[in-house]
Amino acid sequence: MPGMTTRRDCAAQDLADPLAGFRDRFALPPEVVYLDGNSLGALPRRTAGRLAELVQTEWGRDLITSWNQHGWIDLPSRVGDKIARLIGAGPGEVVVADSTSVNLFKLLSSALDLQHGRSVVLSDHGNFPTDLYVAHGLIGLRGGAAALRLVEEEQVIEAIDAETAIVMLTHVNYRTGRLHDMAAVTAAAHRHGALVLWDLAHSAGALPVALDMVGADFAVGCGYKYLNGGPGAPAFLFIARRHQAAIRPPLSGWMGHAAPFAFDLDYRPAAGIARNLCGTPAILGLAALEVGVDLMLEADLGALRAKSVALGAGFAALVEQSCPGRFELASPRDPAARGSQISLRHPQGYAIIQALIARGVIADFRAPDIMRFGFAPLYLRHVDIWDAVAQLADIMQSGAWDTPDYHRRTAVT
Amino acid sequence: MPGMTTRRDCAAQDLADPLAGFRDRFALPPEVVYLDGNSLGALPRRTAGRLAELVQTEWGRDLITSWNQHGWIDLPSRVGDKIARLIGAGPGEVVVADSTSVNLFKLLSSALDLQHGRSVVLSDHGNFPTDLYVAHGLIGLRGGAAALRLVEEEQVIEAIDAETAIVMLTHVNYRTGRLHDMAAVTAAAHRHGALVLWDLAHSAGALPVALDMVGADFAVGCGYKYLNGGPGAPAFLFIARRHQAAIRPPLSGWMGHAAPFAFDLDYRPAAGIARNLCGTPAILGLAALEVGVDLMLEADLGALRAKSVALGAGFAALVEQSCPGRFELASPRDPAARGSQISLRHPQGYAIIQALIARGVIADFRAPDIMRFGFAPLYLRHVDIWDAVAQLADIMQSGAWDTPDYHRRTAVT
Repeated sequence: MPGMTTRRDCAAQDLADPLAGFRDRFALPPEVVYLDGNSLGALPRRTAGRLAELVQTEWGRDLITSWNQHGWIDLPSRVGDKIARLIGAGPGEVVVADSTSVNLFKLLSSALDLQHGRSVVLSDHGNFPTDLYVAHGLIGLRGGAAALRLVEEEQVIEAIDAETAIVMLTHVNYRTGRLHDMAAVTAAAHRHGALVLWDLAHSAGALPVALDMVGADFAVGCGYKYLNGGPGAPAFLFIARRHQAAIRPPLSGWMGHAAPFAFDLDYRPAAGIARNLCGTPAILGLAALEVGVDLMLEADLGALRAKSVALGAGFAALVEQSCPGRFELASPRDPAARGSQISLRHPQGYAIIQALIARGVIADFRAPDIMRFGFAPLYLRHVDIWDAVAQLADIMQSGAWDTPDYHRRTAVT
Repeated sequence: MPGMTTRRDCAAQDLADPLAGFRDRFALPPEVVYLDGNSLGALPRRTAGRLAELVQTEWGRDLITSWNQHGWIDLPSRVGDKIARLIGAGPGEVVVADSTSVNLFKLLSSALDLQHGRSVVLSDHGNFPTDLYVAHGLIGLRGGAAALRLVEEEQVIEAIDAETAIVMLTHVNYRTGRLHDMAAVTAAAHRHGALVLWDLAHSAGALPVALDMVGADFAVGCGYKYLNGGPGAPAFLFIARRHQAAIRPPLSGWMGHAAPFAFDLDYRPAAGIARNLCGTPAILGLAALEVGVDLMLEADLGALRAKSVALGAGFAALVEQSCPGRFELASPRDPAARGSQISLRHPQGYAIIQALIARGVIADFRAPDIMRFGFAPLYLRHVDIWDAVAQLADIMQSGAWDTPDYHRRTAVT
């Protein structure tokens, strides 16, 4: 039919895709359309070999000497410096450590120290719940001198005032993909003397981020989503250079000590970003993460964003074309206002997602009614989008989602 | 010479060793005598295959569905329950998470909550520095209502009084191997209304521990030493069942929520030990750790301790026989009073250790003058001990340690 997008149109887009060569660098299962790279990134082909080398040669053969000989001790800052290039930060501004939640705890605590006399941590209802849980826990631990205030996403800028110590936001809303205007929020915060802590879980590796250019203060992010670092990969944290010397890490462990192997009884923080390390770094996870980050660094981030926007727009248009009126778009309609995902609302979203997974289209569900489709531009093709929507349309037309199996809840959704 | 131990004597001991079969289960490099399993345990042969399967099949092929399909979500408690069997704890009392330092932070904070009104955290000068750093950081964060008090190791029991909130000790001194009497300290603490937090970094997998029998309250421990979980393996934490319901985790992340995938805005802690999880678990590290723990579970812990004692006593006797008067024994002379290591003091200890490493005898150095020799009973033989001391004697007699190369300090010592 005239005006309809065909699979052939999508294949033509793939032929013209400057990032098309990256797909082969991942070990994707055939017959699967993977739209969940925003939850767990795909496996780079090089990872298995790197881990085998790490395990057999470095751990197995060279044992403890690998901390020096194979540079294990430098991995947190080495991989951090690489991630810095993906998020617009400088060398020495990023380090890899712990989990996103633990890093958020560290930075929020350090930021509150810097903002002595101000009492409000401002966030929004769209923030990832763990960020809010961690903030609550930290505030309680610090004796309740600060309070967490939640507003609607659209009201963040107007809610910043002279009481605001920290604005703590996730850049891309995990449910809807809605993107905060990082430059505008940061500038507004600074006008009021507040600092900003960005959670880049759904942005690093998904779209260009310019932390230094917008003057961001703090950020945390995740290694296992768009950075393709593997399940439970270590996370990262960013502190603008201007704040680093004033940081007194609340999790003051030996790896953040100025001289960890002097084994002094007194804590003396390391210079720079390294003081924000705590325990022994997770070497297996770091090595796998480095492979994912190295691969991402080969890509042009402008091209990555352009493809992400095209995939998202293409998906939304195909859903409208093939399932008209069936779903409510939960994501912003303007591609510039969203990250690398499209979310659809449907009261039977859980079962529909299970039906899609059973047909090899892997997406996920977020309660109460959000179906999330993530587009990892390094390995997704336009034909994948077309195939996914074709399955979705068939499931909706046939009612195939409505079987008891697809309503049964699993531990992880 | 009559009365001298020969290599043949050691070989005879190995023939009679009921644990001898375990050595082949590790991928130890030939020509190396590895006396640093107390710092980084050796590589179990099965680990490489398990990681390859995890990476290629679970992550690569089954992607996000592995959280359910391959039980990733249960790994922290599953491996925790296995570790529980090595340290005298019950099912549901141990969980694997984060690093030892981070876990210590969590438990010390929770213990201070339980001990409201008491202000002293009591530890000793022999504790691992990171434990002291973490305690200092936590106390500062909580507004300084508590204070850290350090005494000599021998004075801990008499220092416990009605002000003592928590006794926080490392079971085996990382420098000297000196063993605290866990039953006596715990009983003394409880008599005064104090709680006890044990760091089992150098005990789990090295000697039998009976947390429940002695009535221990809290413990943390390390996955990468005697449990052979790999570099930077995730750590574990223990909370006696009677305390679990009262715990309010300071690091309140989503994985410790009662319903992580409900994404509620409010934090509601999970039942039992699971609330002490925080961020997404490190799956690569957990899978490798499970292999090490499974292997350890095949061994009889009584036989393990007996062999550890024999190796330590044999080493000390051989040093006395081959290098008389050269070193000061830094470890307790009584095998019952030490863990699975022997430490020797020497002003040139650093260079001597480097000379040993150059000859394939891997031990380590702890400032200012401690040479540490760790005996991992699962894979060490009595002939290894003999060979190590033969090299040590030769280095001392020839002065081979005194070259510039061996005085040059590296990042990790």
